Amino acid sequence: MKLSDAQLKEFDELGYLFLPGCFSPEEVAVLCDEAERIYASQRQEVWREKTGAPRTAFAAHTYNEAFRLLGSHPRLIEPLEQVFGEQLYMHQFKINAKAAFEGDVWQWHQDYGTWARDDGMPEPRAMNIAVFMDEVMPINGPLMIIPKSHKHGTLAAAHDLETTSYPLWTLDKATVTELVAEGGIVAPTGKPGAVLMFHGNIVHGSAGNITPYPRRIVYLTLNAVSNHIRKPTRPEWIAHRDFAPIEPVDDDALLRYARSYKMAAE
Amino acid sequence: MKLSDAQLKEFDELGYLFLPGCFSPEEVAVLCDEAERIYASQRQEVWREKTGAPRTAFAAHTYNEAFRLLGSHPRLIEPLEQVFGEQLYMHQFKINAKAAFEGDVWQWHQDYGTWARDDGMPEPRAMNIAVFMDEVMPINGPLMIIPKSHKHGTLAAAHDLETTSYPLWTLDKATVTELVAEGGIVAPTGKPGAVLMFHGNIVHGSAGNITPYPRRIVYLTLNAVSNHIRKPTRPEWIAHRDFAPIEPVDDDALLRYARSYKMAAE
Repeated sequence: MKLSDAQLKEFDELGYLFLPGCFSPEEVAVLCDEAERIYASQRQEVWREKTGAPRTAFAAHTYNEAFRLLGSHPRLIEPLEQVFGEQLYMHQFKINAKAAFEGDVWQWHQDYGTWARDDGMPEPRAMNIAVFMDEVMPINGPLMIIPKSHKHGTLAAAHDLETTSYPLWTLDKATVTELVAEGGIVAPTGKPGAVLMFHGNIVHGSAGNITPYPRRIVYLTLNAVSNHIRKPTRPEWIAHRDFAPIEPVDDDALLRYARSYKMAAE
Repeated sequence: MKLSDAQLKEFDELGYLFLPGCFSPEEVAVLCDEAERIYASQRQEVWREKTGAPRTAFAAHTYNEAFRLLGSHPRLIEPLEQVFGEQLYMHQFKINAKAAFEGDVWQWHQDYGTWARDDGMPEPRAMNIAVFMDEVMPINGPLMIIPKSHKHGTLAAAHDLETTSYPLWTLDKATVTELVAEGGIVAPTGKPGAVLMFHGNIVHGSAGNITPYPRRIVYLTLNAVSNHIRKPTRPEWIAHRDFAPIEPVDDDALLRYARSYKMAAE
C-alpha cells in the first residue's frame, strides 16, 4: 500500500493520517479472537489495569502467528518506509485493550519522549501505526490527537508513575492548553480495520471507557533501522533489540491465515 | 416554555429530551462567572475531586442571586410541571464541573435510586433538568444516556464509595450491557445554553475529562410537591426540606440580572 503525494503532505502538516477500511472483517476477526486468548493468559507481557482488566499486551508478534503476520504486513510497513525512506524494524508492538467499563486513561504524551528518554532512540524517525480491532466511537475512549503538535519537537515532560498502571512521560496542563489552542483536538473514529498513523512527536492521549463497548487497538511502533535504540533500559519485550529489517509478507497472508484458522475451528 | 405533544411523547418513549438554545450567551455568561466564584470558595457545599479540582457545588440557588433566578426559571419549571401535572419544589441543585484535565467519571446510575434509598422519596415523580454552561463535546466527558432504560423501574444497585469522591448507587456491568443492547447510548452535545431533561429512572453516566475544555452543567432536581421526601439521611443542602412550591420568575429575569451585573462590573 502506497501513500499519495497528497497524503504524504497531509501527514507532514497535521502529523497524522487516518485510513479507513485497510483490513477486512475476516482479517480483523482472527486478530480479535487471538487477542482475547492472549489477554486471558498469564504472560509477563500482559499488563493489567488497577482493576485487573487487561490494559496492554506486548510483543504478540513474537509469539502469535496472526500478530506475526500483522507485524510484517505490507499495508503497514510500506507507508512508513515511504515516510522514512529506508527499511524498518519493530521497536515495540502492543495490543491496547481499553476494556469495556474498565479501560483507564492514557494521559497526554508524545511517544518519542519515552523512546528517547527510556530507550536511547537518537531521532524521532520511528512512529506508531495503529489498527482498529473494534469500532472506535466518540464514547468508548477514542485516541485523541492534537494536530500539528509534532512541529514543536520533544517537549518537557514528567514521569507519571501514579495515574495508571503504566509509567508514562506526560505533558503538563499549560503545554497541552497551548497546543490545543493552536491545533484543536481530533478523535478519529471508525469501523474495525481502519488504520491510523501518527508522528512520534504528536501529542495524544485517551480518556477512560465506561461503556460496554471494548476499544482494542494494535499499535506497531516501527523504527528506521539506522535509528536503532542505543541505551535500552526497558525489557526486550517492551523495547526490542532485534534491529533486522522487516521483510513484508504477501498482502493476502493474513487473509489466508484467517481462512485456515476458521476452517480449523469448524 | 411549554413542550409540544410530540415532545412529551418523545420524552415518554426515550426518557429524555434535548432542547438546544434555551438560554442566551448573555444569560450563560453570568452563570459561568458566578460558578467560578463559588468553586473558588471554601463552602461545605463545594465538593472536590481526589485531585482537589471542583467536582460539584450544591445549593447555589440558596446563596447566589444568578442561580436563584435559574432555579425558578420558567423555561425549566414549566416543562416539568407539564410532565408531573402539579407544582414542584427543589429537591437538589448542583453545578457539576467536570473540570478540564481533572473531571472524573460518574459511573452508570439512576438518580431515583439514590433519592429513594437515601432520601425516602416515594415515587419517581422527580427529575433532573440540566443547563449546559460550556459547550458539551464528544471529547470533554459528555453525559451519556441509555434511551428507554427508564422503562425498567428502579434497578438493583450497589453503593460505590471508592471510585470517586462522591458516593453513588451504581449499576453492575451485566445490567448496563443488557440495557445498552436494547437502547444504545446517546451523548447529547451542544452549545452553552442547551437544556437536557431526563427521567429519574434513566440510566446515565459520564467518563472523565482529560481535555483543556471544562464541561460545567447545572442540574436542577425538581420534585412534585406531593412526592416530597419522607426519610432524609443527607444534609439539608444536598436533599432539601423546603417543600414550598416554586413560583417561577419572569422569563427575562435572568437576562435583566445579567445586564445589571455587567454594568456593575464596568
